[in-house]
Amino acid sequence: MSAAVDPSRLSINQETIKQWSMTDLAAGCAEEGVTGVGLWRAQVQEYGVERTARLMRESGLTVTSLCRGGFFTDIGEAARARALDDNRAAVDEAATLGTDTLVLVSGGLPHGSKDLTGARERIADALAVLGPYAEERGVRLAIEPLHPMFAADRCVVSTLGQALDIAERFPAAQVGVVVDTYHLWWDDQAPAQIDRAGRGGRIHAFQLADWITPLPAGVLLGRGQLGDGSVDFKAFRALVDGAGYAGAIEVEIFNEDLWARDGGEVLRETARRFRAHA
Amino acid sequence: MSAAVDPSRLSINQETIKQWSMTDLAAGCAEEGVTGVGLWRAQVQEYGVERTARLMRESGLTVTSLCRGGFFTDIGEAARARALDDNRAAVDEAATLGTDTLVLVSGGLPHGSKDLTGARERIADALAVLGPYAEERGVRLAIEPLHPMFAADRCVVSTLGQALDIAERFPAAQVGVVVDTYHLWWDDQAPAQIDRAGRGGRIHAFQLADWITPLPAGVLLGRGQLGDGSVDFKAFRALVDGAGYAGAIEVEIFNEDLWARDGGEVLRETARRFRAHA
Repeated sequence: MSAAVDPSRLSINQETIKQWSMTDLAAGCAEEGVTGVGLWRAQVQEYGVERTARLMRESGLTVTSLCRGGFFTDIGEAARARALDDNRAAVDEAATLGTDTLVLVSGGLPHGSKDLTGARERIADALAVLGPYAEERGVRLAIEPLHPMFAADRCVVSTLGQALDIAERFPAAQVGVVVDTYHLWWDDQAPAQIDRAGRGGRIHAFQLADWITPLPAGVLLGRGQLGDGSVDFKAFRALVDGAGYAGAIEVEIFNEDLWARDGGEVLRETARRFRAHA
Repeated sequence: MSAAVDPSRLSINQETIKQWSMTDLAAGCAEEGVTGVGLWRAQVQEYGVERTARLMRESGLTVTSLCRGGFFTDIGEAARARALDDNRAAVDEAATLGTDTLVLVSGGLPHGSKDLTGARERIADALAVLGPYAEERGVRLAIEPLHPMFAADRCVVSTLGQALDIAERFPAAQVGVVVDTYHLWWDDQAPAQIDRAGRGGRIHAFQLADWITPLPAGVLLGRGQLGDGSVDFKAFRALVDGAGYAGAIEVEIFNEDLWARDGGEVLRETARRFRAHA
């Protein structure tokens, strides 16, 4: 069994407590002694990028990652140019927020296409442009493999192995991966791939959510609170820590039941579950 | 591009046209010149095993597979003994129906368990008992890897590679695999694993359904008619044929919209889609 998790590694992804405004989040985390947050671009833009950076700084919070760049799989030149522009803006926002990690959701199959391999190549094409831009600004691009049930409509990168096959074409200071238990828990190749990622210095983020069933329609909001489902978090942390990762551990749960509850209560429950299960 | 598919390879899994009774199925297939069917145990038992065998024979139909044995992952001794008994009965039914292939849905995680590896080992334990029993009756056990979204509640075998890792512990005349496009389409390792399965003589069934989104609640009934989704069937058939498989190609779609329509119309549409896309 692993040693108990260091509670100070907990970072709360703001989507876990979506009912909270940016100021609620900053105040709530400060009150509970949580020192890390993962932020989302839409919320950051709404509150203001500089203003968010200042709020987090003044609240003693570290931004552990920004979600999300990506959506690189379109075929048309105009759409691809727009995606690059948008991702440059995301890198700039990450740099302003002081986080070194921009999480990428790479994009699904373009309408009518059945060509997974081609779509994956277009991701690499985009990273070749964005990698140096990000590195110059101290930001690392983190490819997040999404569960294979999202391969058609959100992300053609479905396994950690696939993510590393792309990331390793670039320097680790430019492109790495996200290890998210929700997406990888089923994969018997994940342990070997986590080791591969760690050896290459490419674990840029480690995220937790549990796998619960039945899945809701659309499946996006089916993630479970830690301990409610099938994921062996201690085994995952042992692998990720064993691969040399010592950074923040972000809890990122999309779940309407959590969003319907009092935010402070959700944060306290999440912190308790983190200490018990992570 | 592959050569056009031989239309006589089409087999209709009866769940594709669930609105049809066993006699509707036999008459409908005979009328359309479809000569293969995949059957399900519940429907066969309801109509009678011997009686189903006779009906299919008299209608000129070959039973290409029987679904489903499996559910081997329980921990308790009594539950495991019941599963073995039930699977022996399934083998007997397959033999009576004259099919050489019993499809296995191996089972998910037992309630409260997070141990995927242990669950996979219990599958192998059961196959060690059932393999010889099946072989004596001319029936092959076919492990079906199910999409990773079913890993918790239906099947801890999520990839063709995992299925082969288990199957290869036994003679190919006892245990093989099902290649189902719906479950495997996203996996960049599938081509290599199909080749591995074919070289070992372990492709016991080849099934088609398309991947469509959004997924419905519970995700089980989200399969698409051929051509409506993201699967490149011709590429899959080239791989499976190239690996030496020359048997029936079963269309198995669980979709409430298809079930709400006239069965004959669904059969004709499926046969057309098969010729166009497979």
